[in-house]
Amino acid sequence: MNTFGQALRVTTFGESHGVGIGAVVDGLPAGLEIDEDFIASEMLRRAGGQNLYSTQRKEADEVKILSGVFGGRTTGTPLGFFIQNSANKSSDYDSIKTLFRPGHADWTYFHKYGIRDYRGGGRSSARETSARVAAGAIAKLLLKSFGITLQSGILNIGTIQGKTIDFCNASKSEIFALDKQVETAQKEAILKAREAHDSLGGVALIKASGVPCGLGEPLYYKLDSAIGALMLGLNGVKAVEIGDGIESAKVRGSQNNDAMNQEGFVSNHCGGILGGISNGEEIVLRVHFKPTPSIFLPQSTQDIQGNVVQCEIKGRHDPCIAVRGSVVCEASLALILADMLLLNATSKLENLQKIYF
Amino acid sequence: MNTFGQALRVTTFGESHGVGIGAVVDGLPAGLEIDEDFIASEMLRRAGGQNLYSTQRKEADEVKILSGVFGGRTTGTPLGFFIQNSANKSSDYDSIKTLFRPGHADWTYFHKYGIRDYRGGGRSSARETSARVAAGAIAKLLLKSFGITLQSGILNIGTIQGKTIDFCNASKSEIFALDKQVETAQKEAILKAREAHDSLGGVALIKASGVPCGLGEPLYYKLDSAIGALMLGLNGVKAVEIGDGIESAKVRGSQNNDAMNQEGFVSNHCGGILGGISNGEEIVLRVHFKPTPSIFLPQSTQDIQGNVVQCEIKGRHDPCIAVRGSVVCEASLALILADMLLLNATSKLENLQKIYF
Amino acid sequence: MNTFGQALRVTTFGESHGVGIGAVVDGLPAGLEIDEDFIASEMLRRAGGQNLYSTQRKEADEVKILSGVFGGRTTGTPLGFFIQNSANKSSDYDSIKTLFRPGHADWTYFHKYGIRDYRGGGRSSARETSARVAAGAIAKLLLKSFGITLQSGILNIGTIQGKTIDFCNASKSEIFALDKQVETAQKEAILKAREAHDSLGGVALIKASGVPCGLGEPLYYKLDSAIGALMLGLNGVKAVEIGDGIESAKVRGSQNNDAMNQEGFVSNHCGGILGGISNGEEIVLRVHFKPTPSIFLPQSTQDIQGNVVQCEIKGRHDPCIAVRGSVVCEASLALILADMLLLNATSKLENLQKIYF
Amino acid sequence: MNTFGQALRVTTFGESHGVGIGAVVDGLPAGLEIDEDFIASEMLRRAGGQNLYSTQRKEADEVKILSGVFGGRTTGTPLGFFIQNSANKSSDYDSIKTLFRPGHADWTYFHKYGIRDYRGGGRSSARETSARVAAGAIAKLLLKSFGITLQSGILNIGTIQGKTIDFCNASKSEIFALDKQVETAQKEAILKAREAHDSLGGVALIKASGVPCGLGEPLYYKLDSAIGALMLGLNGVKAVEIGDGIESAKVRGSQNNDAMNQEGFVSNHCGGILGGISNGEEIVLRVHFKPTPSIFLPQSTQDIQGNVVQCEIKGRHDPCIAVRGSVVCEASLALILADMLLLNATSKLENLQKIYF
Repeated sequence: MNTFGQALRVTTFGESHGVGIGAVVDGLPAGLEIDEDFIASEMLRRAGGQNLYSTQRKEADEVKILSGVFGGRTTGTPLGFFIQNSANKSSDYDSIKTLFRPGHADWTYFHKYGIRDYRGGGRSSARETSARVAAGAIAKLLLKSFGITLQSGILNIGTIQGKTIDFCNASKSEIFALDKQVETAQKEAILKAREAHDSLGGVALIKASGVPCGLGEPLYYKLDSAIGALMLGLNGVKAVEIGDGIESAKVRGSQNNDAMNQEGFVSNHCGGILGGISNGEEIVLRVHFKPTPSIFLPQSTQDIQGNVVQCEIKGRHDPCIAVRGSVVCEASLALILADMLLLNATSKLENLQKIYF
Repeated sequence: MNTFGQALRVTTFGESHGVGIGAVVDGLPAGLEIDEDFIASEMLRRAGGQNLYSTQRKEADEVKILSGVFGGRTTGTPLGFFIQNSANKSSDYDSIKTLFRPGHADWTYFHKYGIRDYRGGGRSSARETSARVAAGAIAKLLLKSFGITLQSGILNIGTIQGKTIDFCNASKSEIFALDKQVETAQKEAILKAREAHDSLGGVALIKASGVPCGLGEPLYYKLDSAIGALMLGLNGVKAVEIGDGIESAKVRGSQNNDAMNQEGFVSNHCGGILGGISNGEEIVLRVHFKPTPSIFLPQSTQDIQGNVVQCEIKGRHDPCIAVRGSVVCEASLALILADMLLLNATSKLENLQKIYF
Repeated sequence: MNTFGQALRVTTFGESHGVGIGAVVDGLPAGLEIDEDFIASEMLRRAGGQNLYSTQRKEADEVKILSGVFGGRTTGTPLGFFIQNSANKSSDYDSIKTLFRPGHADWTYFHKYGIRDYRGGGRSSARETSARVAAGAIAKLLLKSFGITLQSGILNIGTIQGKTIDFCNASKSEIFALDKQVETAQKEAILKAREAHDSLGGVALIKASGVPCGLGEPLYYKLDSAIGALMLGLNGVKAVEIGDGIESAKVRGSQNNDAMNQEGFVSNHCGGILGGISNGEEIVLRVHFKPTPSIFLPQSTQDIQGNVVQCEIKGRHDPCIAVRGSVVCEASLALILADMLLLNATSKLENLQKIYF
Repeated sequence: MNTFGQALRVTTFGESHGVGIGAVVDGLPAGLEIDEDFIASEMLRRAGGQNLYSTQRKEADEVKILSGVFGGRTTGTPLGFFIQNSANKSSDYDSIKTLFRPGHADWTYFHKYGIRDYRGGGRSSARETSARVAAGAIAKLLLKSFGITLQSGILNIGTIQGKTIDFCNASKSEIFALDKQVETAQKEAILKAREAHDSLGGVALIKASGVPCGLGEPLYYKLDSAIGALMLGLNGVKAVEIGDGIESAKVRGSQNNDAMNQEGFVSNHCGGILGGISNGEEIVLRVHFKPTPSIFLPQSTQDIQGNVVQCEIKGRHDPCIAVRGSVVCEASLALILADMLLLNATSKLENLQKIYF
């Protein structure tokens, strides 16, 4: 099932060490200006190979648009694009051809499908996220024209928690750190894990501003539901929180309810979502990433014959997937909000009357 | 969007204070024995009105099957059922007709649709979960025939955390407490909140055993993705964790990866899901519920004209929605697993050959 | 797969001789006035038991709305309804319990599902169309508010072809005959078939007026594609024509193309659809129904054990399903157009701007 | 909406004069051998530029597989492919940039989307069918492994009707003529229209053999319903018949019902489909194509400003789209049958037991 979204539908294809990664973005309204430079800049935010905190695989990540745009604008037809793989070193994976890397999808893909593209995890690789970021950039162009903007950054690295949320700092930080106070400690924690041939978990925080009230389609395509689906479906994500999240479960209703005064809501414990629908406040979520499963320490695992073997992973990997993962979460939220913006257009008769009369 | 599932599709309808709640369960394989007593027993687990820890609204919750069953077995046609509302006291809601209850979906439904059934929250009420539990019971009948079983219970109430997981205790506990050591303290915390006209949050833990390797449909209908969608879409849920969840984000890869020995996986940090596909281990998840928004303390809010007013909620409400919510989470997971069981049937050519040759 | 439609989704359930037939209509914009008398009047148009040209089974066909309407208007939540079966005489079917009626779905349901509700064909009965007509009536209420109206009637009965299309005559005719000149002959042909314990085929013509240009979602949910799906999926339909239909295939492009002058299109060979999108002209289609398979003549068939047996059908059946089928086609087209009206709302950015700014 | 299919989902993108045409085929079972030579041979059957009866545009139509295949077999991940456009001469379309060609989608696309890629009709061009034929070839590989085969040919050209159905003749005929007796006359009719700067309609016949009983998913994804959707959604198709089609509507039930003897069905008036499900007999359908709208005669139409203008079409066009259309219909039916084969796998519990036990 390689399609997501209801009104704005994204279908992706491609593997880590195949020809490349592509997507079809269907349902974009016609007339939207496509700024290819902006897409490229978003790809750059996600790209690795730029510092010690990310993978050393350096992909060009050039998004080639194949359809759906004419004279710089969308035409209402599906926008297809393709991102050629250029920096794949499949030979890195010869040694793991017949064994299942711990923490990876090798075991499950092999047993589900009876066949497995072992090169870089094939389809299960996070390389897919390049397509998601490109599609997310297009979604952002749509959202921007309606005053909706998104931001993201890293809150926690391992046990080092950020306290303040400063997106300006994140935008300049090599690890997208939201809290300048702990940024150095967080960087050191990553490097220390890296030097120990190990990896580290982390937490991303994503925020959307300017979201109008009304986005979300109860009961089974609520805004938080769509967020849960796309975020928990992302490589390495093991928990998602909306608004106060796990803290909400610890308090009383009188502490958690968001009261209103003349100006509107006086707090935002709910993270901008009530009953699965945006309430006009900022959408806030936290996404918890496990440590990269690819570590260079020897690990015990099974091979295809069921023998226990020692696994020694090679290749180029992020020491902390949360860092680049934060950009992917932001792109994912953009795609969800754009989809919801379209779906909400027909929520009431009066909207249709504005269009047809 | 009131349908969920891909191969097993559940469509629900109905409001809290309307005629009743119904569902259409489509895609059930023909020949499955429908044990109506089992469905009734599952409804009873969810039902309120039985003790001080839940709502005093006592619904008969009789599931009347309207189609899809012949001679006690499914026929392959859609199974429709209906649960009549019997104990609705709509007059309780006259006072909140024109105002928006804090923490509720009143504000968002009104602004999204321009019209709102204010009686008990209408469609946004957790009364929907009766349909989910009934459908989940049917899913459990299917799963049981393949050796898959589910269990659930309450781990935390407010700040009182359970340490041991004892489903046997949960099955006998009025609050489904998993940890006998803290059960009394958890009960007291709920009652204390109740007496203070307030409510309390809590955390449910759900487990599925006997799940074969291979369930989950990458990339966008992974097992964890479907869990995220259905759980975060449930009333009052603000966070979902799979396996070690938020703890995963705090540790190193060497601590989080699940190694293998001759017998199989030696740990289950991943909660039974790798790459979005079940790996044959137990599926484990934790669902965080906010405190019931309906509290009897005065709260500041707006009315339909935008005036700030004091809100005084009446009616019958759970002091802690996590308690009965745990049963709904279990039903939700059953529906997901049944759907995935069907979808996985065509994952490889060899499966089709077993059927058609 | 018991759901159709994309933005307006209809899910139906129920069998001919079960408790009843129901549906969930999801995606209706909020604020639409629901005129229950109009729904009842549409049900009456479809109802049998009124004259010699239709089945003698007389159902009350009362549509009970279960959800989604508050204060007489839609709320944006799913509209569920149920139509109780009242006049089923299941004993009529005891004799065919173990054999497969020629021309019916008995054989295929039994082999597909391994189990079959033999009473009146179970789910495969045209009794489903009662739900479709009720849902179609709701769609018509939506369409009417945008100036879109539908009409239908019978063009041909057996080999007796109508030449003129007079919807006024159809509305008063017991067989919905469009051509008064041949109405009597057509009636006689039906009665003659009936008296011979046989049945007869026929052709319905359906027209929609006031359809705005732009309805239809290329490439795979074009307007004609949706028509093909719903009409050919209807019991007994074996061919569908749009515009000039089969005549188009006999002529040259210069004869078939619709030229334009100052006022617009000068002809409508295309039946109001170009490239799968409505062009602002009238939508015109013809639907060909086979003769009712239930005939009272002895027929050779197999029983469940594979023995050849003589089949003697009892029960109450339409001598010509095309007659009442025409009303169902009209309802089907209404549902398609309503769906397309919603989907088209987001075709261009400028539409979204009208809503959100 | 550029995706079709339920278990086997095909998403296409691309325009006539853009970079090329591509598709993502999702849901293919893993382990299927992909014979690229076979795909190429199917592309050749559809290709134009080979004789006087088709367009002179000669495309390489090379299908480049981008994902989903490893070691020559499908992996269960989406199979993406791309077909580069090589022979587009966009300058041919400069003259029609601002006017709406009669019989084409120009008018409707412009009004629906407010923007139009006028080069060769953009997305509305039949160039899309190259992706459909490639995807259909993959579907045929799957079907072949289950003994299902498809054939097609041309029955009628204009008013010249074929009487005998000889697929062997069709496979050697430049116009895929099924009836050798009328082949020369049919060719002459096409050439005569061509010489008159005009075009001609025609009828294709498609047959599938070896289809097991049970394919089709009532009530709204019946086999005939899916056929109606895909065939009537094809460029230029104005009518579809299943089995005896329009003839069924002219006869009595006793003539149209298919009786059974010891060997099975004694006739096949129903075209292999009963109640929307395959009955084990041959699937037979007829698809009626209008004449190519692109003719070189002067035609009256409107331009973008609403002025009446004379339209003089240039470019390279099929004089009779039915000819190459027949190959596309065959591919479409293959895709439908493959989808239905997968969907039917879970129709009964006993099938699941074969897989999981």
